[in-house]
Amino acid sequence: MSAFKKLTDHSLKIYRFAHLGAICGWDQASVMPSGGNQARSEAMAELSVHMHNLQTQPQLGDWFAQAEQEDLSTQEKATLRELKRNWQQANVLPEALVEAKSLAGSKCEHAWRTQRGENDWQGFEKNWAEVVKLSQEEAQIRAQATGLSPYDAMLDIYEPGTHSESLDTLFSDVKTWLPALIDDVIEKQSSERFIEPKGQFATEQQKAMGLDVMKLLQFDFNHGRLDESVHPFCGGVPTDVRITTRYDENEFVQSLMGIVHETGHARYEQGLPKSLAGLPSGEARSMGIHESQSLFFEMQVGRSDAFIAHLSRLAGQHFAAHDQALFSQDNFQKLYTRVKKDFIRVDADELTYPAHVILRYEIERDLINGKIKHTDVPELWNQKMQQYLGLSTEGNFKNGCMQDIHWTDGAFGYFPSYTLGAMYAAQFMASMKKTVDVEGAIESGDLSPIFTWLSENIWSQGSILTTDELVTRATGETLNAQHFQSHLRSRYL
Amino acid sequence: MSAFKKLTDHSLKIYRFAHLGAICGWDQASVMPSGGNQARSEAMAELSVHMHNLQTQPQLGDWFAQAEQEDLSTQEKATLRELKRNWQQANVLPEALVEAKSLAGSKCEHAWRTQRGENDWQGFEKNWAEVVKLSQEEAQIRAQATGLSPYDAMLDIYEPGTHSESLDTLFSDVKTWLPALIDDVIEKQSSERFIEPKGQFATEQQKAMGLDVMKLLQFDFNHGRLDESVHPFCGGVPTDVRITTRYDENEFVQSLMGIVHETGHARYEQGLPKSLAGLPSGEARSMGIHESQSLFFEMQVGRSDAFIAHLSRLAGQHFAAHDQALFSQDNFQKLYTRVKKDFIRVDADELTYPAHVILRYEIERDLINGKIKHTDVPELWNQKMQQYLGLSTEGNFKNGCMQDIHWTDGAFGYFPSYTLGAMYAAQFMASMKKTVDVEGAIESGDLSPIFTWLSENIWSQGSILTTDELVTRATGETLNAQHFQSHLRSRYL
Repeated sequence: MSAFKKLTDHSLKIYRFAHLGAICGWDQASVMPSGGNQARSEAMAELSVHMHNLQTQPQLGDWFAQAEQEDLSTQEKATLRELKRNWQQANVLPEALVEAKSLAGSKCEHAWRTQRGENDWQGFEKNWAEVVKLSQEEAQIRAQATGLSPYDAMLDIYEPGTHSESLDTLFSDVKTWLPALIDDVIEKQSSERFIEPKGQFATEQQKAMGLDVMKLLQFDFNHGRLDESVHPFCGGVPTDVRITTRYDENEFVQSLMGIVHETGHARYEQGLPKSLAGLPSGEARSMGIHESQSLFFEMQVGRSDAFIAHLSRLAGQHFAAHDQALFSQDNFQKLYTRVKKDFIRVDADELTYPAHVILRYEIERDLINGKIKHTDVPELWNQKMQQYLGLSTEGNFKNGCMQDIHWTDGAFGYFPSYTLGAMYAAQFMASMKKTVDVEGAIESGDLSPIFTWLSENIWSQGSILTTDELVTRATGETLNAQHFQSHLRSRYL
Repeated sequence: MSAFKKLTDHSLKIYRFAHLGAICGWDQASVMPSGGNQARSEAMAELSVHMHNLQTQPQLGDWFAQAEQEDLSTQEKATLRELKRNWQQANVLPEALVEAKSLAGSKCEHAWRTQRGENDWQGFEKNWAEVVKLSQEEAQIRAQATGLSPYDAMLDIYEPGTHSESLDTLFSDVKTWLPALIDDVIEKQSSERFIEPKGQFATEQQKAMGLDVMKLLQFDFNHGRLDESVHPFCGGVPTDVRITTRYDENEFVQSLMGIVHETGHARYEQGLPKSLAGLPSGEARSMGIHESQSLFFEMQVGRSDAFIAHLSRLAGQHFAAHDQALFSQDNFQKLYTRVKKDFIRVDADELTYPAHVILRYEIERDLINGKIKHTDVPELWNQKMQQYLGLSTEGNFKNGCMQDIHWTDGAFGYFPSYTLGAMYAAQFMASMKKTVDVEGAIESGDLSPIFTWLSENIWSQGSILTTDELVTRATGETLNAQHFQSHLRSRYL
């Protein structure tokens, strides 16, 4: 048996355990009764240890050395590249550091759940110091192994091939036009009148409408489900994708667009190349590309005039007892494109969202590279919020630097993916429109031409190409934030 | 670390993987979309291989030898006894035989799903020959390892300590009185008039009523759920017990009592000793004792006058739009105690059920012990059906010896558990009534005294005692079928 075959067999084995973990993870977040949590967490931890053992078996080094001498096709070479990348990621850190960071992260996150509500920066800072210190150590080790800067080595976990040099350029450009654009749009919208949802929107009806919208978006129900969870997510495995939403019976706006967003993630997973199932080359390209698909669905398609018309029609059908003025296309358009400067990233609209991300990126980059201390973060946060969104967070830690879960357990390097996703989505749409009548397809109710483009250019490619190669193949250029700017100006001005 | 501690740590590790398998198994049977099945089955198979590897690690033999020399408490000795039993069960068969039987069983069962409907004994018999042959081989190997007869060695998998010698005695006795009792009851019921459910009983309403009944039975919803599946079952883990039912909107009788039955299984699991979680001594005692709990709930409590009164009241509330005469206590009593000689075991009533089991027991015992050939089965089935229930199955294979799934994949030795469970349940009730006002407790709506007795005598005991010790401790005697006979006469005559 060739070493390459040994490696892919080994990958398939790990994938099967990952499958069980993905389903039990979905179960834990979605349907598990709370009394089951301790035993479940122990079972999941045992699985993690087992998978780590598989990923770090000593014979793998020899297999990689042999496989690199073998005669492989282009696709096999891509598989080998991704297998090796995963293997290196799993082996680069000493186990003691992994364990220490996991413990410090759990402790910090657990305490944060109370401390945030109490605006307790002093208490949080003590636990967080350890998380930051261990994350810096991790970044140093990853930097030595990859030859990247410490922060870029962390970024590389989520966005292989993306470096802060290019993010600095991209985000500096955004900063030149975004604050003024936000002001202009808010001024323009200030005279608009619209109706906000009020009263009872039963979960069952919201769910029925959500399922209709998923059908319109051609979600494959033979390979997936819609369920509920406190924090919406897309989980499961490509053959069985589990998306969730959260229903608030006082309104339907959030859960509905949440379903559109998660359906974007889900269709990417469902559309990954089946011939590479279980191999890393058959997985999604990066967190940013994943987010580009959810945001393509939510922002590019979901908030288009033609799609809003569908939502408006469906809402009228599903909530027939309500005042139908709420569901007019004009009102829906206004509800779904309202811009507001506010403190909380997860509630932010399309236009202000990048400001939240750029602020976090600049802080975490300097923190991980050791240019600032963790105690500098609240003041820097306040300065940047003033600068980008004109809001003060002085003394307001809970709506400032303590608002996100990401930093509590050391997931530094993740935030840029959100805005990279938004930018890629705009670029994909600009490119798609050259050959596809997007608006016509949406209007007709048969969105197949859109999904065919996405499938051919993104989904079916898995991780065979690098991100830059994938984007260039699809759009003729690497990431170009101009498309994002054009999209925002065209929609909001 | 003591060898005993090494063994229990190893058991806990296996238990955590079993946890993941139990949840993914529930998912597969209950909520998984069908397109997810192939990848799921592969993942479950990989898990089985891994668990088998853990159960057969070479160092375990030494650990057992050492642990048997260690100074252990009575409870620890029970744990060691059960650990060793499991280890022997996992190691006794050559892997080639396990694999061959698994393949032959899958092939036979898969084809049977079509062949049964087509009454195709000729086709079935060809595949089944191999399953029987491999099962006979398995029984021979197990017999050599245990010193039991081949059939008893199979029985021992499900009912440790129960031998066909005692089953022969028990069942011979039943055969002396059961056929006549069935005739007498059918004669008595022939003049009874009752109303059968008709029309629409919405799933949502049936489910709401089922949940109310589970509350009455003190199911712990913090450690379990009710869901749907094609074949109702009780799965999950003791900290998170998943029961399922199947709704037929034309009637509510089956699903409702199915929920009562599965709640019995579930409360046993939920009531197992938490201090022994993850150890075999903390697991349910046997299949027969497990069935005794579901049948205690379904037959002893569920069909009692006092409980039928609750069901009657709840059905009136949940199906308020229906003709309330259907829900009268008298009508419910008749619906739930109707006796009929019929072909199908899974649809059989409490009184005819043992006849179905005894027939299967007698045939599978002689088949596994090599006294009859698999081609003799249809004629033997027909003879015994005539003898016990006065029905001919000549040429009617699909409602005769091809009706059950159990034999298709070689689960010989399992059938007796059903009737052992019914007998144990009757014996537990007779004993409980000496100290507990059972009817008063059910009437009051607070069934706690019943559950306290079951918890103290059965649930909290796990597998610390042997079955005979457990039953003697609870009732003052080993299994005595007289209680079952008295129960049936008292209820049906």
